[in-house]
Amino acid sequence: MAEFRAETKQRADGTQPADGHEAAAILEGARASVDPELRSAIDSLPGSMRRIALYHFGWEHADGTPAAGNAGKAIRPALVLTAAGALGGERARAGALRAAAAVELVHNFTLLHDDVMDRDTTRRHRPTAWTVFGDPDAILAGDALQALALRLLAEDPHPASSAAAARLADCVVELCAGQHADTAMEKRAPGEVTLDEVLAMAEAKTGALLGCACAVGALYAGASAEDVEALDAFGRQAGLAFQLIDDVIGIWGDPGRTGKPAGADLAVRKKSLPVVAALTSGTPAATELAELYGLPYEEGDLERTALAVERAGGRDWAQAQAADRMARAVQELARAIPDPQEAGGLLALAEFVTRRSS
Amino acid sequence: MAEFRAETKQRADGTQPADGHEAAAILEGARASVDPELRSAIDSLPGSMRRIALYHFGWEHADGTPAAGNAGKAIRPALVLTAAGALGGERARAGALRAAAAVELVHNFTLLHDDVMDRDTTRRHRPTAWTVFGDPDAILAGDALQALALRLLAEDPHPASSAAAARLADCVVELCAGQHADTAMEKRAPGEVTLDEVLAMAEAKTGALLGCACAVGALYAGASAEDVEALDAFGRQAGLAFQLIDDVIGIWGDPGRTGKPAGADLAVRKKSLPVVAALTSGTPAATELAELYGLPYEEGDLERTALAVERAGGRDWAQAQAADRMARAVQELARAIPDPQEAGGLLALAEFVTRRSS
Repeated sequence: MAEFRAETKQRADGTQPADGHEAAAILEGARASVDPELRSAIDSLPGSMRRIALYHFGWEHADGTPAAGNAGKAIRPALVLTAAGALGGERARAGALRAAAAVELVHNFTLLHDDVMDRDTTRRHRPTAWTVFGDPDAILAGDALQALALRLLAEDPHPASSAAAARLADCVVELCAGQHADTAMEKRAPGEVTLDEVLAMAEAKTGALLGCACAVGALYAGASAEDVEALDAFGRQAGLAFQLIDDVIGIWGDPGRTGKPAGADLAVRKKSLPVVAALTSGTPAATELAELYGLPYEEGDLERTALAVERAGGRDWAQAQAADRMARAVQELARAIPDPQEAGGLLALAEFVTRRSS
Repeated sequence: MAEFRAETKQRADGTQPADGHEAAAILEGARASVDPELRSAIDSLPGSMRRIALYHFGWEHADGTPAAGNAGKAIRPALVLTAAGALGGERARAGALRAAAAVELVHNFTLLHDDVMDRDTTRRHRPTAWTVFGDPDAILAGDALQALALRLLAEDPHPASSAAAARLADCVVELCAGQHADTAMEKRAPGEVTLDEVLAMAEAKTGALLGCACAVGALYAGASAEDVEALDAFGRQAGLAFQLIDDVIGIWGDPGRTGKPAGADLAVRKKSLPVVAALTSGTPAATELAELYGLPYEEGDLERTALAVERAGGRDWAQAQAADRMARAVQELARAIPDPQEAGGLLALAEFVTRRSS
């Protein structure tokens, strides 16, 4: 991470990268704008579904008593609103609140279902919904949130709402295919997965919804089809950069961050992007890594495994790829929004998600 | 069933009920019209999701080879198309094909998920998708079908498509709440469930989508808000009548029908409508039934249990309720479509689903 940060300390256009305060302020503003939309949508659910959704969003404890709320960083609604504002000004931003809530609902529907499928027990430092309410209720609450998202758009009189709904529904299909590919890949032998496959999976699973959020914002600003696609590509590439960095952190950890411990992904033999790059490198270290990945994790082999990934070039590849994806993201953004001032908010968000600024 | 059929041999308006040929012809026509829409929508899915959907619809075997197809009776698309045609003529019917496919996709999304939750292993005489592809893939395919349904409507330039999408999404939320109530109810003690609760559950789980199908058809015919609601109520009441009859068959069987064996619901101690009516009847037979339901099923106690439901009035209540619901359905239908000739198709379908004609 240190090298990556150093080499990208300066933006291509010579301006200094945001110090993170800008992104934090945008995210805070998005959360404050979207939460009332989100709450009122969730409050419209029948009691049984509402209870699970309120728990999942951190607004209620498992026993139904109010909680402070920890509904995540609101990156996707922030992208919707910031894209709408960048391309259509304050009025477009204000008109996209419902769309921003819809995108956030879709994100949370996928989290509810992914946690069931992946048997993940913790989400945002709390027990996942399925561990509290059981699989059926977590599945149903996810289904209801998807429906709620598309109902918000269907009821939105904004002229862009149908196009946004079609795009969001299409994105859900891509997210499903991405989650399927992820699950299927983890079942295969380490040597059988190609780099193209794992990149395509990461784009579908992580890039697609970030791209869709930006594209929906552009649609709500009345942007041209070309600009909508450029914004989608911006979000996708930034999403891939994010995933690459996240995978690097999953192996070597992030000293500036509490969260995933170093080596967590290696311990579960996850076929993350740097690992697959290493496995397919054709180096002697790749052979060693394949052998290690063929055996169950043993206490103490973490360092050796991480070293094999590094020696096989997985770490360098991931960092170069992340830089490359970010560069592509910036290029796409500049196509739609040439003025660096106007593009600043989206760029700050992209830098925030890829943790290039703290 | 015999008594019920006899007492309803004649319609209130004096005309003879359809002999079932009419409904069969409508269903066959709907299947033929909607299948190409449905196939092309499913063909647009990414390979992994398409494969599961094609298997679920019976168009492919588990190994991906083509199958003859058994996608069910197409009752919901038939209701959409027949309602559109009854209120808006042939042009409205032809314009509602995409909406009919969307409603059928939603129905099948709920089947995929319900089978996972209920651990049902057979659907349309074939192994359920989760038994073939695993839980995660069946959940993902269901998610993708919901998205596909709402994408079809979002992309439909018809002026009613947004209102239909909002209604369909709202219906999904109701279906989820209904499935939740069903699952939750089965976990409670027999004496704790009220008749109102089980009726509300059946309306949400079975009535809501039949009502929504009729309402969507009315919307596509450009019908007034009042007529749309009347059509929704027609479908809901017919759906409840269907559920009541289905529950009677689940206890006493249907001599004219191969399918559920007599007593199947009693063996699994299901809190079906006649059973809850019996349990809450305050009769001595109710006490006996509660005792039987408190114990696991034993070979040979079926007859005694069925007799207890009958002596407690569960069978008579269900048949009277079904007749009552059908009468209400017919009333609602007549409010929107007073001409019996024009309403004939919808009436034939309602009679078909409640198996009042063979």
